[in-house]
Amino acid sequence: MTSIPIRRALLSVSDKTGIVDLAKALGDKGVELVSTGGTAKALRDAGLTVRDISELTGFPEMMDGRVKTLHPKVHGGLLAVRDDAAHAASMEEHQIGAIDLVVVNLYPFEATVAKGADRDEVVENIDIGGPSMVRSAAKNHAYVAIVTDPADYALVAAGSTTLEDRKRLAAKAFATTAAYDGAIARWFGNVDQGERFPAVLPLTLRRAGDELRYGENPHQHAAFYAAIGDATPGIGQARQVQGKALSYNNYNDADAALELIAEFRDADPTCVIVKHANPCGVATAATLAEAYEAAFACDTVSAFGGIIAVNRPLDGVTAKAITGIFTEVVVAPDADEEALALFAAKKNLRLLLAGTLPDPARDGLFAKSIAGGWLVQSRDAGRVLPADLKVVTKRQPTEQELADCLFAWTVAKHVKSNAIVYAKGGSTAGVGAGQMNRLESARIAAWKAKDAADKAGWGETRTIGSAVASDAFFPFADGLLAAVEAGATAVIQPGGSIRDDEVIAAADEAGLAMVFTGMRHFRH
Amino acid sequence: MTSIPIRRALLSVSDKTGIVDLAKALGDKGVELVSTGGTAKALRDAGLTVRDISELTGFPEMMDGRVKTLHPKVHGGLLAVRDDAAHAASMEEHQIGAIDLVVVNLYPFEATVAKGADRDEVVENIDIGGPSMVRSAAKNHAYVAIVTDPADYALVAAGSTTLEDRKRLAAKAFATTAAYDGAIARWFGNVDQGERFPAVLPLTLRRAGDELRYGENPHQHAAFYAAIGDATPGIGQARQVQGKALSYNNYNDADAALELIAEFRDADPTCVIVKHANPCGVATAATLAEAYEAAFACDTVSAFGGIIAVNRPLDGVTAKAITGIFTEVVVAPDADEEALALFAAKKNLRLLLAGTLPDPARDGLFAKSIAGGWLVQSRDAGRVLPADLKVVTKRQPTEQELADCLFAWTVAKHVKSNAIVYAKGGSTAGVGAGQMNRLESARIAAWKAKDAADKAGWGETRTIGSAVASDAFFPFADGLLAAVEAGATAVIQPGGSIRDDEVIAAADEAGLAMVFTGMRHFRH
Repeated sequence: MTSIPIRRALLSVSDKTGIVDLAKALGDKGVELVSTGGTAKALRDAGLTVRDISELTGFPEMMDGRVKTLHPKVHGGLLAVRDDAAHAASMEEHQIGAIDLVVVNLYPFEATVAKGADRDEVVENIDIGGPSMVRSAAKNHAYVAIVTDPADYALVAAGSTTLEDRKRLAAKAFATTAAYDGAIARWFGNVDQGERFPAVLPLTLRRAGDELRYGENPHQHAAFYAAIGDATPGIGQARQVQGKALSYNNYNDADAALELIAEFRDADPTCVIVKHANPCGVATAATLAEAYEAAFACDTVSAFGGIIAVNRPLDGVTAKAITGIFTEVVVAPDADEEALALFAAKKNLRLLLAGTLPDPARDGLFAKSIAGGWLVQSRDAGRVLPADLKVVTKRQPTEQELADCLFAWTVAKHVKSNAIVYAKGGSTAGVGAGQMNRLESARIAAWKAKDAADKAGWGETRTIGSAVASDAFFPFADGLLAAVEAGATAVIQPGGSIRDDEVIAAADEAGLAMVFTGMRHFRH
Repeated sequence: MTSIPIRRALLSVSDKTGIVDLAKALGDKGVELVSTGGTAKALRDAGLTVRDISELTGFPEMMDGRVKTLHPKVHGGLLAVRDDAAHAASMEEHQIGAIDLVVVNLYPFEATVAKGADRDEVVENIDIGGPSMVRSAAKNHAYVAIVTDPADYALVAAGSTTLEDRKRLAAKAFATTAAYDGAIARWFGNVDQGERFPAVLPLTLRRAGDELRYGENPHQHAAFYAAIGDATPGIGQARQVQGKALSYNNYNDADAALELIAEFRDADPTCVIVKHANPCGVATAATLAEAYEAAFACDTVSAFGGIIAVNRPLDGVTAKAITGIFTEVVVAPDADEEALALFAAKKNLRLLLAGTLPDPARDGLFAKSIAGGWLVQSRDAGRVLPADLKVVTKRQPTEQELADCLFAWTVAKHVKSNAIVYAKGGSTAGVGAGQMNRLESARIAAWKAKDAADKAGWGETRTIGSAVASDAFFPFADGLLAAVEAGATAVIQPGGSIRDDEVIAAADEAGLAMVFTGMRHFRH
């Protein structure tokens, strides 16, 4: 593709990185440099010859820099269709010189907000002149190159540009102004107006890394994006120490594992094993290795090819146990030298070191697309404390039952609905997930617990003497009775059914201790 | 809050709706009207006195209107801090008059793209002057009111504004420019650059209706948004004929039901029943009423409080059957008078008439947020046709088995993974959903089929002589053998396991007919 030469360049940058080198390169090619306030000073300090924008416009910079480039001599020079006789005549008549390159980056609006600036300073950092130049140049990319990112300086430093490059730069320029105004709109909506769900919600996503190998299935394409302006740590921010690139399903499963282990960030050593976005085993123990073994024992079949997350730095003993079977992904805050060496021998295993675990109670929005729209909700930050529980049965739970209830409840929050989780002694005994009715979940979880007991040769199923959690209320007594049949002695559930009395009576009849949380945890 | 008077207003609109009335009202209050080209003409035609922007700037409109308002006399009038002595002195020196109100709406970029305009016309419709005025006025909302939506004309028609209103208008203004540049950036990225996943992906969502009552759970907040620039029909676009407002879970479930019924849009009368985002019964039959009865019979327990979707206009017989039990939502292309009358008696039931069902093979992106980022993928538009199937067993499937295989496969695509679906005679016999291993799903589906048979007094389970679909390959023969035990005689699955030979041998041993699709349908 043929290149067109840059004869005049307008440089006006907030971030001065690399601008002097670029200007020197352009100057060496005979490009006339036009600039504004701070940028002009930086270039002159470096010994370069620069023309002031006010000289070009014949109008002084005024109002504390609020108005300096918003002038027809600038925008005419940017927007003129060079091949159009009438446009050329206007340029001639008004002595407007064509500008072939614009290098602009904007006042740091988001950084100003992030540093906690007051309202006036935030508003003052809304750049007006910059986006106008960016947009004019990008619209007229047939003739003008617009550079908004120091990473693209090399592309124009040679003093000429191709149409292909100018189109690509224009695409990036509009993505930049969209992101910029999106951040301003979110600040106005959320912070200034205090709107949780503003009428217009601009989201700007920045692709992190290359396209993924494929999506949820091989015939789907996918990419992982980070939300601009969202500093929440997650799987995308974790350091991948080894293994193949994360797949779409790895991201999804590892996110589920990370969110669940985050609930235990202040607990004793805990391990979760996730498969198909559901936990198949979770346990807390004296050591991480014991926690892993207990989580694994809950469902040894599903654990194969699973995603593991732990709440402590990985040690050698735990790493040795984990690497004993095929595991897709391991997520940990950190790992010691011995653990790293053991994982290194399993080249395909993806090891992610997340540093600090995210706060499970943090605010945030969850969004997903559906046909023709988006469902947006605040994330499920709800957590139940012992003081929130209401004992509704004649029998009070024992201390151990209460601990098991809370443990089962925390896991159930992260199991797809309908969810039933049996737990005993700080470990899941059976997980019933993703069912269209609650009774099935109760039966599945009990059945899986029996499988596990048979496999492990425990003699008795771990649901005997367990606590059972239900993510939503039991609409009838039948689900509860299925849990009784499995051997549960304590129950934790939201309550709130119109048949609560019937369910409580059934619990009393069976000698159960039952607590109500008053909070539901559907998850789909 | 105290109001400040509007002395001078700048009106420049692409959409002229309501502008004459507003200008008249302002003129009556003594407001000086300044305007541009087409807007000025429209106002003069209505007998109003209007000052041309070029008279104010002393600079003619030029370059086919590309440059008309980008002038310091306009932007100085918009951006000046009125209380600042230096700003006031600049205004005095350059004879800049303060502008107190800006009414602007932008060139119709998206409409131009939507009508299939060529590249030059699309680029010409990128508004430059408009967004600059909008942004200047919005930044200086301490003094200036910016109106970007005819719906807000009433707010300023009285000739004065409050700071509270100006802040709200500024928030809306930046949401407007963010959405505008987002649309331009998406066009550049997707259409012009042909990028499936551009480096920066701006999404702009517009809230449809009020905040929802709550999110997935009562302690979560939620709203439904439509994506600006996405014309896909979905639940949000369906006409709600009756019933309470849709809840977050209604949207989610109804979307699952709509996407599944869309697969059958060209099929015989078909009914799907969804619960917790999974189908619990799907059937195709000679009439819609028969299809409903067969779908319901598959799992009468889960169907309670379910979401129903059908592929034909609802008739009275079907409506009578549906209203026989408690149903949350019914989605149909249409409904006849008799059906409408029957539904009307069930006030709480939400009836949605969707018109045409969406194309199941359409392109589109699916996105969901995870901690610290977003997973974005092309939607699962994959569909398997008879010609795609590869028979891998000694025995060929019969015609009926083949039909049941394809039916089961289509349903399995919409069941959360791991998914196993038994089908016979155009109806699901058992659905195993959301399990952490495939064997469990096979057992659960068989077990549910037996429950259904017992409840219905069918004598034998409908899995006997059925086809079974697995959404991903059987990694071992055990899952397949569980299906054999349930009575399946035909199998449809992707194939591709390193143990395919073992699985095929087991199928041959059992006398099954098995086909491979070469396509997987994980869904989480």
